[in-house]
Amino acid sequence: LHSRLPAVGTTVFSLMSALASEHGAVNLGQGFPDFPCEPALLDHVDAAMRAGHNQYPMMTGVPALRGAIAAKIAAVYGARYDAASEITVTAGATQALTTAILCCVHPGDEVIVIEPAYDSYLPAITLAGGVPVLVSMQLGEQGYTVPWDRLAAAVTPRTRLIVINTPHNPTGSVLRAADMQTLADIVRGSDMLILSDEVYEHMVYDGARHESVSRYPELAERSFVVSSFGKTYHVTGWKIGYVAAPASLMAEFRKVHQYNVFSVNTPMQHGLAGYMADPAPYLDLPAFYQRKRDLFRDGLTGSRFTLLPADGTYFQCVRYDAISALPESEFAQWLTKEIKVAAIPVSAFYSQGQESGIVRFCFAKTDDTLRLALERLSKL
Amino acid sequence: LHSRLPAVGTTVFSLMSALASEHGAVNLGQGFPDFPCEPALLDHVDAAMRAGHNQYPMMTGVPALRGAIAAKIAAVYGARYDAASEITVTAGATQALTTAILCCVHPGDEVIVIEPAYDSYLPAITLAGGVPVLVSMQLGEQGYTVPWDRLAAAVTPRTRLIVINTPHNPTGSVLRAADMQTLADIVRGSDMLILSDEVYEHMVYDGARHESVSRYPELAERSFVVSSFGKTYHVTGWKIGYVAAPASLMAEFRKVHQYNVFSVNTPMQHGLAGYMADPAPYLDLPAFYQRKRDLFRDGLTGSRFTLLPADGTYFQCVRYDAISALPESEFAQWLTKEIKVAAIPVSAFYSQGQESGIVRFCFAKTDDTLRLALERLSKL
Ligand SMILES: CSCCC(=O)C(=O)O
Ligand SMILES: CSCCC(=O)C(=O)O
Repeated sequence: LHSRLPAVGTTVFSLMSALASEHGAVNLGQGFPDFPCEPALLDHVDAAMRAGHNQYPMMTGVPALRGAIAAKIAAVYGARYDAASEITVTAGATQALTTAILCCVHPGDEVIVIEPAYDSYLPAITLAGGVPVLVSMQLGEQGYTVPWDRLAAAVTPRTRLIVINTPHNPTGSVLRAADMQTLADIVRGSDMLILSDEVYEHMVYDGARHESVSRYPELAERSFVVSSFGKTYHVTGWKIGYVAAPASLMAEFRKVHQYNVFSVNTPMQHGLAGYMADPAPYLDLPAFYQRKRDLFRDGLTGSRFTLLPADGTYFQCVRYDAISALPESEFAQWLTKEIKVAAIPVSAFYSQGQESGIVRFCFAKTDDTLRLALERLSKL
Repeated sequence: LHSRLPAVGTTVFSLMSALASEHGAVNLGQGFPDFPCEPALLDHVDAAMRAGHNQYPMMTGVPALRGAIAAKIAAVYGARYDAASEITVTAGATQALTTAILCCVHPGDEVIVIEPAYDSYLPAITLAGGVPVLVSMQLGEQGYTVPWDRLAAAVTPRTRLIVINTPHNPTGSVLRAADMQTLADIVRGSDMLILSDEVYEHMVYDGARHESVSRYPELAERSFVVSSFGKTYHVTGWKIGYVAAPASLMAEFRKVHQYNVFSVNTPMQHGLAGYMADPAPYLDLPAFYQRKRDLFRDGLTGSRFTLLPADGTYFQCVRYDAISALPESEFAQWLTKEIKVAAIPVSAFYSQGQESGIVRFCFAKTDDTLRLALERLSKL
């Protein structure tokens, strides 16, 4: 069988999670919490199932959930999306990202992707027949930043889509207002679209605000904005996310969505709609995770790891050049097998496996898990 | 925005369900039960959520569920699939179908589709860049049959995939052993693959057995076999299905699956795995639905509808030429608005909207619902 995705192997997250469990390592690799969600969320889902919400929902999502999403976006970002025509519930953020790419990228269209990048973007572009154009982030004193001048230079008449991601996985960097203005300057007057992966929207620290593209009308009018309930509500396995976009873009998204998954788990959608009535869980999230970030960073201060800035997401990147000269992937494996702490090599987020001597730890863990990992890492 | 799917509108199922609820019609259109699933199934899911099964499952599916699926296929069809490498859990059967098409159809490849056809096949082929080659079923004394000679004549060196569907939606016809032998003759010695949509596998009536491609090693070795928990367990809104295929095909399927949805709702997978330990729900399904089919057919006997055979699925097709000369779509709308019973025009399953004066009713309804619909239909 002639492969449609010859370059694709098993995702690094699955590989490292398997290795972690094989070696009894603390798994700070794949990004997911090791603590439970709020029982109230489960109560809502159970009530929905018992109430008989088990048949096909609307293709676009359960109206109450779309309404709750639109209300949240309005409250948090001051942006108006019509729940009927501009919000669609998806089977996780990955499905939203891939569907958005499939609905607007034609064979031969160029798509600008900023590396390091979440590993689903490029295969989705390849499936669509698109041509990825890669721009590498710069790593300086302030950590990882987007070189907008180089990104602007990468634009051609064939550029159809720019993929951005803030807060950024794996680097933990966040775009600022100035970044958004620069992006607006780049796309102004063109017909380029934006796919904005904002699944860590509620994890921005130190009092900064999340710069959603939905805050910027000039950007929002050409953007698919993707988010995830799994990240926000500590249920990564539920695989429910959503996309917000202007009605004309959403109409195309839904054509593909309708024939990709048709619709998304009914009782979970009802459960989430009920649970979203209380904004506290997402409003409290920055403080919740900032404390864990600080616990983890404090624990590594004085170690031989060099901490990179961690302004958002639940990831902390570290340099390990004072510890080892191994390539990232081998270092991550060694760390998992010998030190019993799993990490993700940042090279896995580069299309050419670019090495920078940096690995990523996930701090979405109980304090006990973090302390155990820190104890092991501090021995180095 | 230049559409990737210019021919696509809102699926007929959504349109007719909306019309049915607008007009207070009994909804025998979109295929879903109006009765609840077994509470035991909900108990399993709730227990899984409370036990903390809420984070990412394996990309391929929860091992216990893959094991249960493999065991069921072995028990029912005598076919051996390796749960680790040959079964993948999907976000519904539609996602399985689209992913299978995306993973093996290259731009320019031809895909043979038998019409009338479930409406997701053609858009998925279009997204993949494939070329659909349509073969129409014949409608004779025995109801709808596949004209294998015409299908064989449609094969070219570019034919990559043949899509079959048994039991067949919308016609309710089923393939027999002789059909499978003929299909084996057609593909023997070629590199054509088969995508077999078997979501109604447990709804074959009158003592016949379901002719799964998995029963035929010559076919199974080149087939993706797709099924659905939603249909079998009366939870169409859960959107969980699966695909079984030889390891070499499954490896390609998983490359696309991994970057399309990555994985599928964890607590629901655990719940289904627990519930599958009891084979009674699927073993009892033919008798359960055959009784409903007979109730519905008996109720229309003597009416001015002509009943077509209904050997499988939960659909009953009827001719209405003694009642109306309207085209199918208009007749289905009139039936919904005036007679207050919604149906699906079979023309919606033809790429060119071919008219045959036939509409489809879904009999996956409570006896009371069926009786109410029959009362209204008998007035005609
Ligand atoms: C879909 S598994 C990957 C989870 C994740 O987002 C990450 O670890 O980066
Ligand atoms: C995905 S909605 C369609 C349900 C169904 O399979 C049908 O009615 O044919």
